[in-house]
Amino acid sequence: MSAPQKKLRVAVLGATGAVGQQFIRLLDGHPWFDVTAVCASERSAGKTYAEAAKWVLGTDIPASVAGLTVQDASEIADVDLAFSGLDASVAQAIERAYAEAGIPVVSNTRNYRMQADVPLLIPEVNPDHTALVERQSFDPAGRGFIVTNPNCSTVGLVCALKPLHDAYGVEALHVVTMQALSGAGYPGVPSLDSLANVIPHIGGEEDKMAAEPLKILGTLGPDGVENATFTVSAQCNRVPVWDGHLLCVSVKLRGNPSADEARETLRNAPDPLADLGLPTSPERWLLVDDAPDAPQTRRHVHRGNGMTVSVGKVQPCPVLGVKFVALVHNTVRGAAGGAVLNAELLVAQGRIVARA
Amino acid sequence: MSAPQKKLRVAVLGATGAVGQQFIRLLDGHPWFDVTAVCASERSAGKTYAEAAKWVLGTDIPASVAGLTVQDASEIADVDLAFSGLDASVAQAIERAYAEAGIPVVSNTRNYRMQADVPLLIPEVNPDHTALVERQSFDPAGRGFIVTNPNCSTVGLVCALKPLHDAYGVEALHVVTMQALSGAGYPGVPSLDSLANVIPHIGGEEDKMAAEPLKILGTLGPDGVENATFTVSAQCNRVPVWDGHLLCVSVKLRGNPSADEARETLRNAPDPLADLGLPTSPERWLLVDDAPDAPQTRRHVHRGNGMTVSVGKVQPCPVLGVKFVALVHNTVRGAAGGAVLNAELLVAQGRIVARA
Amino acid sequence: MSAPQKKLRVAVLGATGAVGQQFIRLLDGHPWFDVTAVCASERSAGKTYAEAAKWVLGTDIPASVAGLTVQDASEIADVDLAFSGLDASVAQAIERAYAEAGIPVVSNTRNYRMQADVPLLIPEVNPDHTALVERQSFDPAGRGFIVTNPNCSTVGLVCALKPLHDAYGVEALHVVTMQALSGAGYPGVPSLDSLANVIPHIGGEEDKMAAEPLKILGTLGPDGVENATFTVSAQCNRVPVWDGHLLCVSVKLRGNPSADEARETLRNAPDPLADLGLPTSPERWLLVDDAPDAPQTRRHVHRGNGMTVSVGKVQPCPVLGVKFVALVHNTVRGAAGGAVLNAELLVAQGRIVARA
Amino acid sequence: MSAPQKKLRVAVLGATGAVGQQFIRLLDGHPWFDVTAVCASERSAGKTYAEAAKWVLGTDIPASVAGLTVQDASEIADVDLAFSGLDASVAQAIERAYAEAGIPVVSNTRNYRMQADVPLLIPEVNPDHTALVERQSFDPAGRGFIVTNPNCSTVGLVCALKPLHDAYGVEALHVVTMQALSGAGYPGVPSLDSLANVIPHIGGEEDKMAAEPLKILGTLGPDGVENATFTVSAQCNRVPVWDGHLLCVSVKLRGNPSADEARETLRNAPDPLADLGLPTSPERWLLVDDAPDAPQTRRHVHRGNGMTVSVGKVQPCPVLGVKFVALVHNTVRGAAGGAVLNAELLVAQGRIVARA
Repeated sequence: MSAPQKKLRVAVLGATGAVGQQFIRLLDGHPWFDVTAVCASERSAGKTYAEAAKWVLGTDIPASVAGLTVQDASEIADVDLAFSGLDASVAQAIERAYAEAGIPVVSNTRNYRMQADVPLLIPEVNPDHTALVERQSFDPAGRGFIVTNPNCSTVGLVCALKPLHDAYGVEALHVVTMQALSGAGYPGVPSLDSLANVIPHIGGEEDKMAAEPLKILGTLGPDGVENATFTVSAQCNRVPVWDGHLLCVSVKLRGNPSADEARETLRNAPDPLADLGLPTSPERWLLVDDAPDAPQTRRHVHRGNGMTVSVGKVQPCPVLGVKFVALVHNTVRGAAGGAVLNAELLVAQGRIVARA
Repeated sequence: MSAPQKKLRVAVLGATGAVGQQFIRLLDGHPWFDVTAVCASERSAGKTYAEAAKWVLGTDIPASVAGLTVQDASEIADVDLAFSGLDASVAQAIERAYAEAGIPVVSNTRNYRMQADVPLLIPEVNPDHTALVERQSFDPAGRGFIVTNPNCSTVGLVCALKPLHDAYGVEALHVVTMQALSGAGYPGVPSLDSLANVIPHIGGEEDKMAAEPLKILGTLGPDGVENATFTVSAQCNRVPVWDGHLLCVSVKLRGNPSADEARETLRNAPDPLADLGLPTSPERWLLVDDAPDAPQTRRHVHRGNGMTVSVGKVQPCPVLGVKFVALVHNTVRGAAGGAVLNAELLVAQGRIVARA
Repeated sequence: MSAPQKKLRVAVLGATGAVGQQFIRLLDGHPWFDVTAVCASERSAGKTYAEAAKWVLGTDIPASVAGLTVQDASEIADVDLAFSGLDASVAQAIERAYAEAGIPVVSNTRNYRMQADVPLLIPEVNPDHTALVERQSFDPAGRGFIVTNPNCSTVGLVCALKPLHDAYGVEALHVVTMQALSGAGYPGVPSLDSLANVIPHIGGEEDKMAAEPLKILGTLGPDGVENATFTVSAQCNRVPVWDGHLLCVSVKLRGNPSADEARETLRNAPDPLADLGLPTSPERWLLVDDAPDAPQTRRHVHRGNGMTVSVGKVQPCPVLGVKFVALVHNTVRGAAGGAVLNAELLVAQGRIVARA
Repeated sequence: MSAPQKKLRVAVLGATGAVGQQFIRLLDGHPWFDVTAVCASERSAGKTYAEAAKWVLGTDIPASVAGLTVQDASEIADVDLAFSGLDASVAQAIERAYAEAGIPVVSNTRNYRMQADVPLLIPEVNPDHTALVERQSFDPAGRGFIVTNPNCSTVGLVCALKPLHDAYGVEALHVVTMQALSGAGYPGVPSLDSLANVIPHIGGEEDKMAAEPLKILGTLGPDGVENATFTVSAQCNRVPVWDGHLLCVSVKLRGNPSADEARETLRNAPDPLADLGLPTSPERWLLVDDAPDAPQTRRHVHRGNGMTVSVGKVQPCPVLGVKFVALVHNTVRGAAGGAVLNAELLVAQGRIVARA
C-alpha cells in the first residue's frame, strides 16, 4: 500500500508565484496532502493568500487556501513536507534550512539540481535515484532532504529518450524547443515581445538541456550517479502559446534502429509506477500519437491532466537516424505536477512520513 | 545599365489569391514594371479586381489595379512578362501556354521547380542558373520561358547556407522551421487550429526543404545543374505568427570551421547584385545580427522591406559543428518579392525585353 | 427526485461538427444520458466517429463514442432524446422529423428559436416556458417536441438582465460584444483574419441579440409568450480569444436604481434550479465579481465548468443609468452545455422520459 | 509657405521609452525636424541611444539616432523644440523647465492636458486652440510653451465626432473601446494576461474619455476654452492586438439625423490642413469605409501611415440614434504621430521657429 495512513501536512514555499499557484491548484483535493502552510516573501506575510497572490490561473483560488495566512518563507513551517517553487535567488538557503530541520523538500527550483547527492527525479525514468537522499548531510537524523525535478523542457526530452536509451543507448541528439509563455513565470514575457512573435532565446535553457539529461539518465553506482555520456545540442525558442513545450528531436542511437523500431519501443515503454497507485500518475506517462499532425501544443497538452508526455511524427532522420516530436506540459509535468508526483513516489517508498 | 528603356507590361496570374495580392502590392509603383493584366479563374473574370479579390493585406488595394477588369487566366494576356502565383493545380498548363506564346513566366508556383531545364532561382545565390532557360523548348524563338523561385522556407535556408557552402562545403544539416500562418495562403489555417498552438506538420514541406537546396546550390555544367550532394533533415512547424519563417539550423561543414569563422563568413558574404541597380535588391541580402535574442520573427522580418534574410545566434553545435538561426519573410523574399527580384535580374541580363 | 430511473439513450445530431463535439465532450460520463447514436451527414455515415470527426477540442475523443458508427442524420435513430447541433441548412426538416417520430429534440440550432410555440429556454430564466411544448403539433401523442436554446451572446446578456428585469424592468440597453473565435465553428474564421485583429462584424448576430431577449424575458400568457418590450442596440465584434463572449452592457432600468442597488440585485439573484439536482447546474449560475479587472475572458470563462455567467464592473452609466460587463462561455453555457441543462430540466419536469 | 527655412533641431524627451521610440521612428527623415538630442533618465545618460534603448519596434533604430549620446532629461538640451514622451511621474517639472527656457514642448504626456491655458490639440479638429499658448506664463518672452495631444482613445473618438458635432451637436454618447497592447507601453501588459484574453479594465481611461472630448470640442472664448457639454459614458477593454484602438460608438445627436445623413456628414468632413502642406498630414484624416466588416484593427490601422482615422458601420441605433465603429492608430495618430502633426501646425502658424 502506497497511501499514507493520514494526510500529510504540506507547505508550499514561494506560494504566491506562478509555480506556487500551480502547486496550490494541483494539491486542491489531493488525497494524500493537505496544504496547511503557504509561505512567501516577508512582504506577503500576514496577508491572506487571496490578498497576497495575484492569481493568474484560469480557475479560481481553491477555497481551502484562499483564507490561509501567508507565512514568511524564511521561518520553518510546521509541516511534514515542503514543496518549493521559490525563486532561485532565495531557494538555496531556505530549502537547506527546511532539510536541516528534518523536513523533506520537494523542489521545482534549479539550485540543487546538479548537486551530486540530490536526485534529479522523474519517477518513471529514474525512481531508483531517490536512494541518493541517504547520502545527504542536511539532517543527521535522515528525515530532512532535498529532491528536485528537472527543468521543464528537459522533462519532455528525457521522458521520450528513456525507452530509447534503455533499448539502444543514445549517442547524440539535437533538439529544438518551442516553449510556452507560462514557462517564463509571471509577469514574464511582455506581450509586446510575444504577440505573433518567436524569440530564439531563453536564458540558460540550452545549457540546462545539455546537462540535466546526462544526470537523469545516468546510473546509480557506489559513488553516486554516473552520468550518461551522450552529446546534446539544444536551440530554445519562445513561442506564443500558453502552456506546453513542443520539442523537435533528432537522435543518434546505437545500432541505428529504424524509425519503426524506435516508435514501437516508445509505444511499449513500461511504467514503473503502474502498481503504486500514486494519485498524480497518469494512465499513460508516455503516449505515441500516430496522427500526422500530432502532438499539437494546445490540443494535446492536457492529456493525463497534463502529466502525459505525447510523442509523434517518429520518422527516419537522414542525418542522425531517428527524429520525432515530443510535447510536455511545462507547468504541470514539467514543474509543479512533476514535483507532486516526486513526493508521491517518496511517500510510497517510505521516505516521507508524517512527523510525530 | 540594368533598367529597361520603357516600363514592361506585366500580368499577374492568380491575381486574386494570397500570393497574387503580394505581387500586386509589391509591384505598385515599381519603376520597371506596370501591372496591366490581372488574371484569375473564370469565376472572377469580368469583375473589377476590387470586386473579385478578397484583399487580405494590411494595406489598401493599389488604386491603379483596383479598377482593372480581371481576365480569365486560361487566355494569354498581351504582356511582356507574367508573374505566376497560380494554384499548383492549374499552373502546369497555363504557365506552359504563356511560355509557348513567347512570354516569360516568373513563377512562384512549385510545378516546374525541379524540372531540369528550369532555373530554381535566388539571384544572390545562383544567378548563373538563368542560362538554363536557353535549353527550354517551350518557345522555339527563345523568348518565352519559365523561371521559378524556391519554396519560402528553402529560400531562408539556402541564403544562409550559400556563403558557408562556398567557403567550406556543406556535408549535412538539420533544420527545424517555425513557419508563419501567411505561408498557408488564404483562408489557410483555421483560427481554432492556430490560436496559441503549434502544429508540427506542414504537408510536403519537409520534402521540399530536402530537395530544393541541392538544386539551387548545384553547379551549372554542360548537362544542366549538377546537384549539390549534402543531406538535409527538416522538421516543419506552423506557429502563430503573421509573416516570417524562423529556422533553427545545425550544419556540418567540411573542415569543421569554428562558429566564429562561420559567423564572419556569413557576415562578409558578397552580394553579386551589388552593381546591378535592381529595384527590389535590398541594401543587405544577408544580415548577421549579433544580439543574443535575434532574429525575432515579428521584430526583424521587415528588414530590407522583407528582402533581407537575418541570421543570428551563430554558435558551436556539439553534434554537427555549427548552429544558427535564420529568418526569412515568407511572402516577400520567400514568394512574390523573390519572384520580382528574379524578373529584375532577367531584365538586367537582357533575357526579358519589351515585345514589339 | 429529478433523476430518471434509468439512463436515457441520446442521439447527437450533427455530431461531427463543432457543437456536436461539445455535446459529446459534455455528455461523457453524464449520469442521466448515454450517447448511443452519433448522426451526421450521409458522407460520414458508416465510418466510426473517430474516423469521421475532425476533433478540434483540447481533450481526446471520449472512448465510449470514438468507436460508434456514425448514422445518417436523415434517418431517425432509436433514442429517447436527440440533441441537435445540426447546421441550420438541414436542421429544419430533421428536427421536425424527430419530433414527429415522438422523440424530443433539444436543439442548439437557430431554426425554430423564434417559432411561437417553441421554448427559447434558459432554465434559470424562463423555466416555465417549457409549457409551450404542449402546444406543439409535431406529435399528436405529445411525446415529441422541440426546445431550443438562444444564440450564445444572447445567453450571457439575458442571464445578466434577468434579475434586473424582474426587479426594475428593462427599458432600453446598449451592448457591445467581444466574441470568441469558437463561436464561428470550424473551420470558422481564417487565422489571417483573426491573428491580432478585431473584426467589427458577425453576420446576423446583432439582429439575434435584439430579438431573442424579448422572447426569453417575455411572460407566458394564454396565447403563448408575450414578448418583453424594451429596446436593444447591439454592436458585435470578433476578437482573438478561444472561448468566451465578453459583453459591455449599458442599461436603462425603470425607477433608475443606482449601480450599487443593481449590483446587489445581481448578486442576490435566486436560482430556480437550486433544489432540482440537475447534473449540469452550476453552483452559481450568475456570479458578481467585484475585482476591478474582472471578468476576464480567459481567466474566468471556465467558472462552473463553463456554466456560470460572470458579471463585473457594475457602475453608474451617465447616459443610460447602469453599466456592467458580462462573460459567458459561448460553447458551453451558450451552446451545448445550455442545451444539456435544458434537457435536464425537461427530464426533471417529466417532459422527457425513457421510451418503452 | 509652411515649411521652416531651415530644419529645426529637436529633442525627444523620454527617448528610450515606447513613445519616445515612436517619435524617433517617425522623425527619421522628417523634412522639417532633425533629432539632435535624445534625453532620458540619468541611468541612461552617457550611453549611446542604441545601448540605452530596448528597441521594441518592428524596424531597426534609425542610423542617425543610434549613435547619439543620451542626455539627462533634467538638463535642458539646446534645441528649437522638444517632443515629450516622458513618463507622467517626471513630466511635470521637466516640461515646465523647457517651456521656461523658451523651448516649445509638444507633449504626448497627460500632465498638462486639462490645464486651462494648454491646448489639447488635434490639428484637424481644433487648430484655433493653439492661440491658448499666448496665455501661458511659462516664458515671459512667449517663445516657450506647452501643447499636448489627447489620450490615444480620445483621439479616435473626437475625430469621428467632430463633423457630427459641427453639423448637429452631440448630446450624449456611449463608447466601448477595444484597445491595443501597445497602448500600455513597454513592458506593459504581461503576455500571460493578454494571450487570448480580454481585460475589461484600463486604469483611468474611462475618465479621460469622458473629460477630454469636452475640452477639445469646446470653443475658444475670451476666457479660454468653453467646454462642450455632452455626456460621455466609456467602457474600456484591452484586447490582444498590437496597434490600433477600435471604438464602438453610439451617439445621440441634436435633431436626430438618420444614419445615412450622419454617414455622409462624416464622409464629407473638411480638412482644415488641406492647404498647409504639413508633412505628416495624411491624404484623408477621416475615412468612411463602407465595407460591412470594416474597419478592422490589423487590416486598416496603417492607413495614411497610421494618421487616418477610419470609420465604418454607420447604422441606426434604436437607443441613441446613430452608431458606428472608429479605428485609430494609438501609437501614431493617438500619440507620437499626433504630436508631430501638432508641431508641424505650430511651425506653420509661426509659433515654433528656429532659435538664433
